[in-house]
Formats: sequence, C-alpha cells, structure tokens
Amino acid sequence: MSILVVGSVALDSVETPFGKADRVLGGSATYFSAAASLFAPVRVVGVVGKDYPLERLDFLADREVDLTGIEHADGESFFWAGRYHYDLNSRDTLETRLGVFADFRPRIPDHFRDSPIVFLGNIDPVLQLDVLEQVESPALVAADTMNFWIKSKRPELLRVLERVDVLLLNDSEVRELADTPGLLDAARWVMERGPRYVVVKKGEHGAVLYARDWMFFAPGYPLERVFDPTGAGDAFAGGFLGALAAEGAVDGILEGHHEAHHEALRRAVVYGSATGSFAVEGFSTDRFRELSRDDVERRVAEFRRLTAFEHELTAATTEGV
Amino acid sequence: MSILVVGSVALDSVETPFGKADRVLGGSATYFSAAASLFAPVRVVGVVGKDYPLERLDFLADREVDLTGIEHADGESFFWAGRYHYDLNSRDTLETRLGVFADFRPRIPDHFRDSPIVFLGNIDPVLQLDVLEQVESPALVAADTMNFWIKSKRPELLRVLERVDVLLLNDSEVRELADTPGLLDAARWVMERGPRYVVVKKGEHGAVLYARDWMFFAPGYPLERVFDPTGAGDAFAGGFLGALAAEGAVDGILEGHHEAHHEALRRAVVYGSATGSFAVEGFSTDRFRELSRDDVERRVAEFRRLTAFEHELTAATTEGV
Repeated sequence: MSILVVGSVALDSVETPFGKADRVLGGSATYFSAAASLFAPVRVVGVVGKDYPLERLDFLADREVDLTGIEHADGESFFWAGRYHYDLNSRDTLETRLGVFADFRPRIPDHFRDSPIVFLGNIDPVLQLDVLEQVESPALVAADTMNFWIKSKRPELLRVLERVDVLLLNDSEVRELADTPGLLDAARWVMERGPRYVVVKKGEHGAVLYARDWMFFAPGYPLERVFDPTGAGDAFAGGFLGALAAEGAVDGILEGHHEAHHEALRRAVVYGSATGSFAVEGFSTDRFRELSRDDVERRVAEFRRLTAFEHELTAATTEGV
Repeated sequence: MSILVVGSVALDSVETPFGKADRVLGGSATYFSAAASLFAPVRVVGVVGKDYPLERLDFLADREVDLTGIEHADGESFFWAGRYHYDLNSRDTLETRLGVFADFRPRIPDHFRDSPIVFLGNIDPVLQLDVLEQVESPALVAADTMNFWIKSKRPELLRVLERVDVLLLNDSEVRELADTPGLLDAARWVMERGPRYVVVKKGEHGAVLYARDWMFFAPGYPLERVFDPTGAGDAFAGGFLGALAAEGAVDGILEGHHEAHHEALRRAVVYGSATGSFAVEGFSTDRFRELSRDDVERRVAEFRRLTAFEHELTAATTEGV
C-alpha cells in the first residue's frame, strides 16, 4: 500500500551542543520518506534546485521510494540553518532561503494519483488543497502544519482540515490553532472541523492520539542523548502512516468503530514514536541509512515493556468500565 | 500490611483560577493518608496546634488511619498560603507559618515501631534520620524531599538516601539533587547512593519508575480540569505504597529480581498516578472523602486503555529483545 508525500526536500545546516552538520539532507518529505519507507513504498513530490546532492538520496531509492515526482528547477534548493540551545527544546533559525521552494506548485505525476494514503507535509495550506485536487479518492489523508500557517493562512488551513482524516501537529501548535490551553479541548475543537483523529506530539513528553471517544498515549522514548531534534515530527508521521500502510489497516479505518482499526492506530502511534526517536539520534536522516525494520520492531517492543502492566478488575469494579 | 507516615499535618489557604479555599486540611501526611488508606491501614506521626480542626480528620479515622501518633502542641498549626497561576504549573507562596512544626521532633509510638512500610514525608532530613532510628527493620522505606532540603541540608539528605529503598521526587528536584539535566542520568546517580528505585514525578507529563536495569512509565491522567494541584505528589506516594501494601508485595521486593515484584511495582506507579489525579480534582483532600477503592480501580483500568497496545514480534526480531 503506497504512500504519497508532498513536502520540502531541503538542505539544512544544523548546530547542536554535540556538533555541527553543514548542508545535509533535510526537509519534511525527506524525513518522512526515510521513516515510512521502512514499512511501505513511498512516492515523493517536491522540488530541488540544481545544487541538490541527489546521489545522497540513493539510500531512499534503494528502499522503494519513488523520487520521480521531485521537480528539478533552476535555482537554489530550499536551505535552512539553525542552532539548538543547550536543552535541545528550543532553537534559533539562523537563515532561511526558500530558493526554488518559493515558487513550488506541486504537480502530482499520473502514476502517483491513485495513492491510497496521502501525507501533506508542512507546506502552504493553499498547496495542500491543490494536492488534494489532483489525487483520486485516497483512503486516508493526513496532514501536518505549523504556527506560521496557523497565523498567516487560517481560512485556507480550515479548508484543509475539512478534507483531512488525521491531523498531526505539536502541542503548542494545536493550542494556537484551537486558541485554548487544554490539549483535550483543543483536539476536540480540531475534530469538530473535519479530522477524525488528531495526533498531538509533545516531544520528550510523548504523543497522544485523540479519537471521538477514546485516546491513546505513547511516552517519549527515554534516550540517553538527543543528538539533533530536526525532523523528529516528520519521522514520526512516516512511522505512523508507514505502520498503517504495512498493516493494510487503512480501508474502512475512517468508519472508526472496528476494534482492529483502533488497535492498528494505537500501534501506529508507537511506531511513529519509535521512528521519531531514531531520527533524533543522529544528524539529518543519518540514523535511517543503516536502520532496518527489525531495529524498529525491537524499539516498539521496548516501548511495550516501558508501559505495559497487568491489572485485574474485581467483579465489583467492572461495572461502568 | 500497615504503613507508617511521618510528615506535616497542616492548614492551607489556596487560590486557583477556579476558586479559593481557606484554612483547609493540608500537609504531606494528610494527603498521603487520604490516598494510602484506600488500600491499607495507615499510622500517622505529626504535630498540630491547638487550632487544628481535628474533627475534619474523622474521615481518615473511619478508614483505618491511626491518628494517635499526632502530637498536640501548644501554639499554632503549620499554615501555608499559596496562589496558583493560570496554567496551574507554577505558584506563589503567599505565607508560611511553621508554628508548632518548627520544633517538631517525631516520636514514633511503641505500637507503630513494627511498621513494615515507612514513608518519610518531605521534612528535614535530620528528622527523617531520627525516624529511621526509632523503627524496627521495616521491609520498605520510601522518602520524599524537596529543593529546600537539597540546597540547605545536602550532607544529611545523602545520609538519608543510604537508608532509603524508594526515593520519590519530582523532575526538577532529581535534576537539582544529581546536578545533571538528564533524568536517566539523575536517577542513576540517586541509585548509586542507596535507593534501589527512584520514582520521578513529572506532573501532567506522568511519572517514571527507575530500577537498576529497567524502567516503567505512566502518563498523566488526561483530566478535563485540574482544580488544585496541592498534595498531588503525596497522594501519589500514598497510592504507590498503598498498592504495594495491599498486594503484600513488599517482602523480598528489594532483592528485585522476581518478575512478580516488578509487576507489583509497575502497577503501583499506576495506582499512584490514579490517586494523584484524584487529588487535583478538588480542593484539599476533598476528593478523597467520598472516594472508594472501586473508583481507583476504574481509573487504573482507564490508564490501561490509555497505554496498552498489542505488538507481535516476528521471529527475525525477537533476537536480542
């Protein structure tokens, strides 16, 4: 089951307390593909400039990532430079050069239009809507966004929400979008505007999936060291949707009343947490180059040991549960 | 299996965004007892002044809390007044009057000395050591502390650690105690100084139990509204130790290599999270007045639904797990 991703394919220069990486692979579509391709075929739509080191994407092509939807435009590739603070929870953007990304108009190739799963990376909501016009009835549409679009393109973003099944975003973003401090209230606000599911990422504090009448929580993986937080959210989305694709659990998932679908969604949150945790263990997408599906499965098993407990309800207490 | 608690029995005046409560029951021993007594008999050692409204402790006496170890001294009861900020994660102390607590020297009554479980509430480490001199070989000693003692009585606190089996404290406290930003590193630092287990409470972000070679995580319960955060940590400790006492899981727990003990400890973290979550749903210990053990069991079942997921490792991935 293939996944179409539309997003940025960028070059990043990153400084963390542990080192520095210059003009390395970055961008939402890149991180997403690196994680999702551990589970399922991925089709990428994006744009790069003449300066892009395309050979460094070979490890993705080797893993069933179809890169034929990446447009090669005249000009510079999208470039971002940032410096993380000591605690790695905050960062300063040192430089952003949009380059060819400034005029990016996603064109979905004909052989990508039947993709059953679509991930709209964090791009202009106008472009996200444009993508949805070009695909044939996907079974599942997921999207990411950020504070910049919440502020500057709110009406367009709300139109995107009407057509999205799963919205993935971080805690500060969902609070800003719904204009309310409580995460549960904020998630409900989003679900009233279209998405059946909202996944709120809380960094080291884990991730929560909100559904209409249930929720699921996965903790942050207890890492010895966070090396570079860039791309963790996109790697999460890749693991989350990749796991759903691998299970073939997408058909009918939006009816949402089958226990098997709930189980698949719960598991997918853990797979996303696992791939997100791998992403931050190295600079750029480095950690994914040698990573295998087995490595991910082992980390998911560790998540299970971290949170599983036995509990027997007595007869008296099973009422009302 | 009885639990001895030594700590403050106080009066609190609390303001939160949702209301105000004047001179209500407070103190670490009070919150601890309210939670632990849902599971096991509790013995309290503390001190109150002549002004203490003792009849308001009747709901504890009705639930097998032995209050005969509370000393009645001439003077005012320990009084604390505070105001929580809008987000309820921070607060200002408006007033602290130690009163009779300033000269508190815990005297453990003879009929309390054989208690198999001892909880040293957040008091001067010198007094915590004094308590340990008065009890007969308890099977399990747990302790709480706070930044004030970490700063002002560090050598004494380190002597307490040598004799404590489980240290419970919050994330900022363990970071300050170990002088390191990473929670895993900080917990290891503590475990090298005596405690076999460290429970780090992270408020809305849950709680982690660290053991020598494993750990367990429970999320914060997704409350609609936090009414008054006062006492959540002591109510957590009460549920945690109460659950261990109720299971009779304490004998041999410090050898720490029996799976049944690990399971009991994992469950205890969830029970603590459950009682902590009830504590913040009302002012003071109000929420515990009508609360039943069944209510707690139902909440523990909710915690299970919040985090449980199925995961099947393939043959290839079970190696090295």
